[in-house]
Amino acid sequence: MTQIVRDALSRIEAADVAAAETARAALDAKTKPRCSLGRLEDLACRIASIRRTAAPGRLTAAVVVAAADHGVAREGVSAYPQEVTRQMLANFDAGGAAVCVLARLAGASLHVVDAGVGAPTGNIAEGPAMSVADGERCVERGIALADRLAGEGIGILALGEMGIGNSTSAAALSAALLPAEPDLVCGRGTGLDDAGLAIKIDVVARALRANRVDPADPLAVLAALGGFEIAVLCGLVLGCAANRVVVALDGFITGAAALVGARICPDAADALVATHLSPEPGHRLVLDALGLEPLLDFRLRLGEGSGAALALPLLDASLAILTDMATFATAGVTDAGR
Amino acid sequence: MTQIVRDALSRIEAADVAAAETARAALDAKTKPRCSLGRLEDLACRIASIRRTAAPGRLTAAVVVAAADHGVAREGVSAYPQEVTRQMLANFDAGGAAVCVLARLAGASLHVVDAGVGAPTGNIAEGPAMSVADGERCVERGIALADRLAGEGIGILALGEMGIGNSTSAAALSAALLPAEPDLVCGRGTGLDDAGLAIKIDVVARALRANRVDPADPLAVLAALGGFEIAVLCGLVLGCAANRVVVALDGFITGAAALVGARICPDAADALVATHLSPEPGHRLVLDALGLEPLLDFRLRLGEGSGAALALPLLDASLAILTDMATFATAGVTDAGR
Repeated sequence: MTQIVRDALSRIEAADVAAAETARAALDAKTKPRCSLGRLEDLACRIASIRRTAAPGRLTAAVVVAAADHGVAREGVSAYPQEVTRQMLANFDAGGAAVCVLARLAGASLHVVDAGVGAPTGNIAEGPAMSVADGERCVERGIALADRLAGEGIGILALGEMGIGNSTSAAALSAALLPAEPDLVCGRGTGLDDAGLAIKIDVVARALRANRVDPADPLAVLAALGGFEIAVLCGLVLGCAANRVVVALDGFITGAAALVGARICPDAADALVATHLSPEPGHRLVLDALGLEPLLDFRLRLGEGSGAALALPLLDASLAILTDMATFATAGVTDAGR
Repeated sequence: MTQIVRDALSRIEAADVAAAETARAALDAKTKPRCSLGRLEDLACRIASIRRTAAPGRLTAAVVVAAADHGVAREGVSAYPQEVTRQMLANFDAGGAAVCVLARLAGASLHVVDAGVGAPTGNIAEGPAMSVADGERCVERGIALADRLAGEGIGILALGEMGIGNSTSAAALSAALLPAEPDLVCGRGTGLDDAGLAIKIDVVARALRANRVDPADPLAVLAALGGFEIAVLCGLVLGCAANRVVVALDGFITGAAALVGARICPDAADALVATHLSPEPGHRLVLDALGLEPLLDFRLRLGEGSGAALALPLLDASLAILTDMATFATAGVTDAGR
């Protein structure tokens, strides 16, 4: 492991339970029955525990979309041709993609990272996606970006990705790390038919045979089965956790990246919020492994960080409740104490 | 039925299916796999069908909180004393209540209707809440407010309520109209213990015995078992439907008001969006009867319209996707056609 990665890991702490408890007490004093805002209150407390303060205030959010191409795309595991990765990068720049629209609505800046578009990884069905050194460089790049965004005052980072074929990579990573059989973690991605799904399951099985990975060495698993953008996302998770920045996960691919991050450093999972549940069957398994319950169940299967960006107003609402609501005492409302 | 109510009903049309289909075709041309934004796309299509245009654009939202007191509160069916209804009205005016915070976040104006605070209805456990004429006056008031807000350009109306004891009234209405046994529609409201819940179930059973209502006469059921604010909310539902204004329901009480509205005029249900699922057991039954699937499952049990206001950004996001996303053609992205 490189010095930069080790340095980030040394800065990651477990959730600040005391901050969450103090935030809960503050919520209990607000003009509403105790816990009557349900998961919105839980969310505020979780953010307090990540920020390590009972009064996190309102936070500035950003969205990062990491993009890369995958050698495994040539196996026919996507409904879309590989050139779409690059085309979508132009669409991100022009502001026309779903994540652009949703980030604008949420008042979040959008940052696109070209982690290897047009320069695909190795085909995981035949061998490693990249060398461990290349994987570490991508992780370092994610850490550096998280450091920079945290330094600029970002408190919530929504993660997204673009990469034709990357749900196959996420499935292979999940199969190796959970562990789970390929058919339990493979789904239709952005539109596979039955025949395509069967190919995808077979490709993941071949990838596991071609790369004899040790789940106890998550960086090596990441290099063997991941993608450049997934490695950058893993670095973003670690970097955010090191900087007390809330990570708003999107779907299955960002979830798989977070799973790698949590296997490298279990406390990093404390920085995560699951924004939605993807129809990809592996997503629920990954979220369960991370101990996360998704906020939305909207059958979103676009990726790009669209679900994470969509959920940003919910995170903001939880903080506004904690920050802006009146208390029983100040509002002169009788408190029944429950 | 009064002339004003009859006039509103005459303006209510069933959903515009063609507008929804044209909106779906427009969404299919956007740079994303077909239907990959799941329920967000369904939501955009539903709003298109309510507005009767495939291009509803972005809409201005408002929140109405109808408040009133209930004679049944003296039966001990709430964890809070009746004076809290009036205290919360002051809190709404001061901007410190949850719904104030969430409406501000959503950029929605907040309108509080005092439908009878400090002047409780009759105790439904002993007789009718109000006369049919009084019920009709409240419904008319809701229709008039919907007409006014629609005239001011409001396209989405989030409904909320405040009234100590009103989940008992909603339970009685639901029990009579669904129909359902009292224990299936009674919950802990804003904080009843086991003994309080048993009292509430008994009170609803007594209300059904004391008021021999005919479910085929929903206005009479509303007058017998409802509350002043619930009757105003019923009028708002009918008035919004008459004006093609999207109704964002909150929890069990606004749901019961909508159920009355849908029994008066079934096409009015086409104007509804269910924003969240309340832990009140009767809420799911009411939503099922209305054919609605809630957007959020956050264990919200505050009322006030807090859940409806919380969900307004999701409605806005669905419209932004339909309005602002690039198409495959304009963005130069290859369309796989699925």
